[in-house]
Amino acid sequence: MPADEISQRHALILETVRRLLRRGAMRHLGKMVNKMHPAEVAKVVRHLDDLPAQRILVGLVAGVEHKAEVLSELDADSLVGVFTELPRAEQLAVLRALSSDDTADLLGALPPEFAAELIEQLPRTESDEVVDLLRYPAETAGGIMTPEFLAVPTTTTCQEALTRLQAAAEAEMVFYIYVVDADGVLKGVLSLRELLTMPPDTPVGEMMVSPVIRARVDMDQEEVARITARYNLLAIPVVDPEERLVGIITVDDVIDVIREEATEDMLKMSGTGVDVEYTLSMGALQAARLRLPWLLTNVVGGLFTAWVMTRFTNTLETVLALVAFVPVSMALGGSLGLQSSTIVVRGLATGQIELGDVRRVFLREMRVGAMIGVVCGLLVGAAALLWRDPWVGLVVGSSLAVSSCVAVTIGTLTPILFQRLRLDPAVTSGPLVTTLNDVTGLTVYLGVATLLLAWGLLPPGP
Amino acid sequence: MPADEISQRHALILETVRRLLRRGAMRHLGKMVNKMHPAEVAKVVRHLDDLPAQRILVGLVAGVEHKAEVLSELDADSLVGVFTELPRAEQLAVLRALSSDDTADLLGALPPEFAAELIEQLPRTESDEVVDLLRYPAETAGGIMTPEFLAVPTTTTCQEALTRLQAAAEAEMVFYIYVVDADGVLKGVLSLRELLTMPPDTPVGEMMVSPVIRARVDMDQEEVARITARYNLLAIPVVDPEERLVGIITVDDVIDVIREEATEDMLKMSGTGVDVEYTLSMGALQAARLRLPWLLTNVVGGLFTAWVMTRFTNTLETVLALVAFVPVSMALGGSLGLQSSTIVVRGLATGQIELGDVRRVFLREMRVGAMIGVVCGLLVGAAALLWRDPWVGLVVGSSLAVSSCVAVTIGTLTPILFQRLRLDPAVTSGPLVTTLNDVTGLTVYLGVATLLLAWGLLPPGP
Repeated sequence: MPADEISQRHALILETVRRLLRRGAMRHLGKMVNKMHPAEVAKVVRHLDDLPAQRILVGLVAGVEHKAEVLSELDADSLVGVFTELPRAEQLAVLRALSSDDTADLLGALPPEFAAELIEQLPRTESDEVVDLLRYPAETAGGIMTPEFLAVPTTTTCQEALTRLQAAAEAEMVFYIYVVDADGVLKGVLSLRELLTMPPDTPVGEMMVSPVIRARVDMDQEEVARITARYNLLAIPVVDPEERLVGIITVDDVIDVIREEATEDMLKMSGTGVDVEYTLSMGALQAARLRLPWLLTNVVGGLFTAWVMTRFTNTLETVLALVAFVPVSMALGGSLGLQSSTIVVRGLATGQIELGDVRRVFLREMRVGAMIGVVCGLLVGAAALLWRDPWVGLVVGSSLAVSSCVAVTIGTLTPILFQRLRLDPAVTSGPLVTTLNDVTGLTVYLGVATLLLAWGLLPPGP
Repeated sequence: MPADEISQRHALILETVRRLLRRGAMRHLGKMVNKMHPAEVAKVVRHLDDLPAQRILVGLVAGVEHKAEVLSELDADSLVGVFTELPRAEQLAVLRALSSDDTADLLGALPPEFAAELIEQLPRTESDEVVDLLRYPAETAGGIMTPEFLAVPTTTTCQEALTRLQAAAEAEMVFYIYVVDADGVLKGVLSLRELLTMPPDTPVGEMMVSPVIRARVDMDQEEVARITARYNLLAIPVVDPEERLVGIITVDDVIDVIREEATEDMLKMSGTGVDVEYTLSMGALQAARLRLPWLLTNVVGGLFTAWVMTRFTNTLETVLALVAFVPVSMALGGSLGLQSSTIVVRGLATGQIELGDVRRVFLREMRVGAMIGVVCGLLVGAAALLWRDPWVGLVVGSSLAVSSCVAVTIGTLTPILFQRLRLDPAVTSGPLVTTLNDVTGLTVYLGVATLLLAWGLLPPGP
């Protein structure tokens, strides 16, 4: 059905499931669940924020294949909660039904003792594959690849390759066939479509596309996603340092990476949790603990700001009217800095900005900051002039213009500096840039006022 | 090659291209360009921020197919700049070489007069397809779909379907074969892989998967992306209101949508341009014009804050020490509000939060705000106590705790309210939420102080 109806239908389904659960109408619920697409069952499970209910629902899914598919779409918390309560035989069946990358993900989320026990009970070939995958860090090409691909030697004919493909029940992405040499080194690739349109007796080695765009096992998943997107691939092969084909990453996993990384960047930019996935099912205490450290930047910066203010007590006591315009100076600086760093952080993440573009981006941002600073300085300065007196207007206006330029400078350069230092630029944008801007902005504001006061340009008030 | 080398190689290529251009070594440059992947040529062109140089580079790409591929990867500005300077014959050849959705995108970006002239000169079938696509708004399923798909009647045998596929040079995504009835109504789907493993004489109608997950022409592209991702599809079929198959959207276009929408949301959240794509090639003046309106929210809010402060002149004159802690109260409120609204905005965008989850999310955020407010209130209050006196500490601490709760409330409810009103929640997060928080936070802060002062709890200072 058209998908705008899907979300309405989803709300209805969720409500119905809740009612059936409350009434304990398991028969009815089971029938309903087994008519749904596994991805939709998973969505319902995710939105039931109650572990026992989640267990009941997954328990009702008939067939281990479907159950595995539902489980593979859950977030880590629900997944562990539901999976650990399944009977052991069913746990093993689910692990075998999942593709190796999902099995490794699931095992990686479980308590190590328990996971090791399960691995021991898997058939040898599968436990080998999984242990192999567990070696790689989660956010690298190795961590997200699946070893279930289709590779043939260069001498295979197109007809033989097709036959191999028809028999390969396990392979995940059967739209590309990879060609390897005797050592397993990746040599070329053919799409299933190309394979179909070629003379059946030709060796694939003669028709394959080469060299192949590929990822190294240790490549960051963000880079993998960028490349797959840039070259419009349906899957990207993964090679080890000796260029041997060890796995593939399919485009649906790439999409998950792209969405995850965008969410992560947004959360980081607002100072919300960095390492752990910030899920909705997370409790308030855990959420507060994740968010607090970044807010402490504000607190420390704020205390520093307070100290700066005491350095200017004379100026403030002399012209109390200046105090009224401290917030607008801070707000404007904060927003401008956030804009600049958002542009830089996102540009670096999508590859639109490379480190070589830094000069150009910085000069552009400086011009933008100067223009906006002059406009806002004139506006606020005029307001202060009409409201108070010309001198206050002059101080407020000129200090706004200066602090705008400072704000874009900090907003642009902080993430670039972090990128140079191989730190994550996204964590700089929110609290850090804002705090730096608060302190410098306020110092500039009060500094300009004090100078004008010292030069006798600012008459003592009130 | 591994992709971590790709970005280093890219920097080298870019520098080499710049040097060859400066030296006018066109022969050498042409050779180099034609060894590169079109996606990489496009990347180099995008990073050359100089239109004449971009034209020269695209002009050197041999073969209209490759040229079209390079052009289809450019941003709108460079695309129009380069394309309009091509000889007319080449323009038409490029338009014919592009897939219809890219042709429609390109024509949509050109001046209408010029585009209409080109459409007239296209062969009839192609101009029909393109005009058909131009009817749909750019950010809907209709606007991003391509009409080049493979559909067969239900009675076709698997063998016939395979033969049709081998002949279909035009179809974009040949890994799915769609099944339609006599009226063109979408009935089912088969993957190429399934087709290969089935008995050749079976009619596709008996083996197809049905019903098909599909999108309506008028569906928002963000929703299309969500569905394609949720069901791990390589392409999603698009139907008109009569359920007739009119196009497909391939996963590479879905990836572009997901990245675009994430970038757009981030830019919106920091108040940077909304309708127009904020490109790096954009001039400073245009960029400033896009960003200024959102910053004016800060200015207006700031003037309002200034007015609030004048209402509390008595309190401030009595306890000037309070002024020093205005910035930390504002910074903390701003950051907390931004965190809450980021979580809500991103949750709504990815479908992790539905409108039905609002109560739960809100209660969680309230708890988080209260906890963080108490912790930060104690910290800053203690600092104020040690630094000034117990009363200032009391005022600062308690007002921080209260304004934290206000900040999460505003941060959570503003985007939800916008979503309810069918406005874009992303535009609320940056300047709007911050400004609302500044004004209410300051009022709470000074209000609490004034109350304590009135009750005689706050001794007049300094």
